[in-house]
Amino acid sequence: MADRQLHLNVNALNSGFYSSAWRAEGSDPRAFVDVRHYVRVARIAERGTFDAIFLADVPSFADRPELRPFQALEPTIVLAHVAAATEHLGLIGTASTTYNDPYNLARRFASLDIASNGRVGWNIVTTADASASRNFGFDEVEAHAQRYERAAEFADVVTALWDSWEDDAFVGDKASGRFIDTSRVHPIEHRGRHFDVRGPLNVPRSSQGRPVLVQAGGSADGQRLAARHAEAIFSVAHSLEEAQAFAAAIRAQARAFGRRGDDIVILPGLCTIIASTAAEARRREEELWALASGEYGLKRVAGILKVDPARLDLDAELPEIERPADGMQTFFDALVGAARRDRLTVRQLIRRFGGSTGHRVVVGTPEEIADDIETWFRSGAVDGFNLMPDVLPDGLEVFVDHVVPLLRRRGIFRTGYGGRTLRAHFGLAHPASRFAPVSAPPARAATSA
Amino acid sequence: MADRQLHLNVNALNSGFYSSAWRAEGSDPRAFVDVRHYVRVARIAERGTFDAIFLADVPSFADRPELRPFQALEPTIVLAHVAAATEHLGLIGTASTTYNDPYNLARRFASLDIASNGRVGWNIVTTADASASRNFGFDEVEAHAQRYERAAEFADVVTALWDSWEDDAFVGDKASGRFIDTSRVHPIEHRGRHFDVRGPLNVPRSSQGRPVLVQAGGSADGQRLAARHAEAIFSVAHSLEEAQAFAAAIRAQARAFGRRGDDIVILPGLCTIIASTAAEARRREEELWALASGEYGLKRVAGILKVDPARLDLDAELPEIERPADGMQTFFDALVGAARRDRLTVRQLIRRFGGSTGHRVVVGTPEEIADDIETWFRSGAVDGFNLMPDVLPDGLEVFVDHVVPLLRRRGIFRTGYGGRTLRAHFGLAHPASRFAPVSAPPARAATSA
Repeated sequence: MADRQLHLNVNALNSGFYSSAWRAEGSDPRAFVDVRHYVRVARIAERGTFDAIFLADVPSFADRPELRPFQALEPTIVLAHVAAATEHLGLIGTASTTYNDPYNLARRFASLDIASNGRVGWNIVTTADASASRNFGFDEVEAHAQRYERAAEFADVVTALWDSWEDDAFVGDKASGRFIDTSRVHPIEHRGRHFDVRGPLNVPRSSQGRPVLVQAGGSADGQRLAARHAEAIFSVAHSLEEAQAFAAAIRAQARAFGRRGDDIVILPGLCTIIASTAAEARRREEELWALASGEYGLKRVAGILKVDPARLDLDAELPEIERPADGMQTFFDALVGAARRDRLTVRQLIRRFGGSTGHRVVVGTPEEIADDIETWFRSGAVDGFNLMPDVLPDGLEVFVDHVVPLLRRRGIFRTGYGGRTLRAHFGLAHPASRFAPVSAPPARAATSA
Repeated sequence: MADRQLHLNVNALNSGFYSSAWRAEGSDPRAFVDVRHYVRVARIAERGTFDAIFLADVPSFADRPELRPFQALEPTIVLAHVAAATEHLGLIGTASTTYNDPYNLARRFASLDIASNGRVGWNIVTTADASASRNFGFDEVEAHAQRYERAAEFADVVTALWDSWEDDAFVGDKASGRFIDTSRVHPIEHRGRHFDVRGPLNVPRSSQGRPVLVQAGGSADGQRLAARHAEAIFSVAHSLEEAQAFAAAIRAQARAFGRRGDDIVILPGLCTIIASTAAEARRREEELWALASGEYGLKRVAGILKVDPARLDLDAELPEIERPADGMQTFFDALVGAARRDRLTVRQLIRRFGGSTGHRVVVGTPEEIADDIETWFRSGAVDGFNLMPDVLPDGLEVFVDHVVPLLRRRGIFRTGYGGRTLRAHFGLAHPASRFAPVSAPPARAATSA
């Protein structure tokens, strides 16, 4: 394990994870619809030898758009711009299996993977938001289990399409006029419960074979999907114990699917607020908090808990709340767990989560942040983090300039890119096409028969 | 009409419109999956002050991929790369209404339109290919009329979503914390035969308001769709008379829909083979022809005519063929029309169309090409052309360096860009959002009541 290295993505949540980040000094309120903003963030991440930039997504108008920015631009369009402006950085985009079609999605990500020379990942989500369902002809969100059943078949179809060309199906021989060896391009002939897809895809494989599969839901259904398909997981963890239990559970389930188990990169979300002294970092948090809308924080927490905001008394502890059968179960568990463990009032709970997401927040000096990251990484419970800086690009720049050098000095983070693909950064093997002829068994195996 | 100016798109058919273009000297067989190739083509077009680059598309593995390249990379991904590398050039991408979802498509094109500062057009097609239908769960292609009925409703939904934000709905006031004026962002509440879409879109309007609607089918259904929605038409015309009749028919139908009629830019396809002498141009055609697969040309023509290739005798005239109720009707009419008019053998017919598309081919010197273009343009039957150079980027480079200067000297083509959006290049007005408050009537009208 001497060579085990930390993995870091930056989750480019428009102006930053704080709901008030767009109001911070130096922030451009229009950044959420400015591809140059995302390019700037990506270039800083590449300077810091990050594994990838990550874009979240929901295909609907945001919940409280009068108060804060949201993911407006479609992620693959943004990532195509980022691809054109970077050379090594991985590019992970979120797309929903509930509101897409496998052929189109497979093709869009494969196209981006070729255009970026093999740097792409697809973050598989099933989209719990009711506002999205109404943009696609449904009056209600499909139930959790059904969404995940569709997602599993969707991922099967997409990976089969990505395998439909063998790696060397392209010929392009000018002399003979032979363009493609069609005997090495295969219809997938998928007939399933949700999809009938003949294939093949009309896009060849990329230099990393196919995009990396990323998964982000921690519910039982989500874990099953991740164990079967995910090569990287964007998880939620508020304590080392939680993270260790999650990693053990996922790796065990993956082994049950015939996988190795350690071939999954686990990256919990980590929100950072960094300054040169602990007091300054606290002041930075204080200022962002003062600019944040209390109403937004309350509605966000109430939305995750699926309760009427009127039921929540800001200065009392959380009332008894039944775990909803659907919705953002991972964040529900994180919120309720923290509230009970630390006996937080609703106001403290909102603040603990930055009034925004359900991920862990750390506030401190570069040394304190590096210590935290090193402790978690060395415990073996995580392979790295999906970093969510408080304000973008500022918060990332501070991380790259002041935390990354410490991580490098401690020998846990790369000083330069060793490869050119996202698979190389994550240490994942090149996946052979399922249609490629099985190579002859090694000589020893052959003679021992 | 003194100021009337020609419009030119380049149709970036991977290696060029000739099926053998990838085998030509200097061509890179891998160009079809190399975004740098499309960027190169786009930069040459921008140097030639073209209106736009145009990308065709079919979401399936091509018909004869063993013989020639095809549109593999998804057009909006390619155009995002082109956007990052150009400043003025319009970006028109094809996407099917039969195999997409209006919310996702509206969002993807709106995102690209914002990222490119208002340079995007959507080419609406209904996709006649059976191979595509089998990638989307259908055993057969839906009938022509049904496809077009869905297309019309699809375009209604997409334009409503593009209108769902008023132009100035974004506030972004750091002092007050007001981010978006949600009273100026409108659900579209569409309930139709094919789609139920609540909206609003989660993407604001671009600097050109919304992407330009382009349409490319010339059948009766296609003309009706174009007359109702299209702001630019990619048509097929083999004689001035045909072009004049088409323009008159489209403009009359548009007026019947309450439009002005002259607010549609009509651009037939034009394939060019250019050299410094007429003899050299013929030789260039000869060489491309010698490299082209006869089998490919025959199958392509048979495919358009919907007959068994075995029924076609290369050295005889076309047999009687019934016009199919579906398929590529525009190309069917073009092929049969040319064959009957000029009494062509099947072999001559294949060659007339470059063994490839059903568009008009001109072979000659820069002066001859410029004469042809000027004659067509001055007749008023066309507003310009969707140019399909024989080989890319070579054939486009010759056009830009040798034909464009002649067109400029003759006063019919711009010497520089007058605006920054595709609407500005095409001379189209900024469309007000249908949800914007109607401005007060002018004073004179008010007092005359």
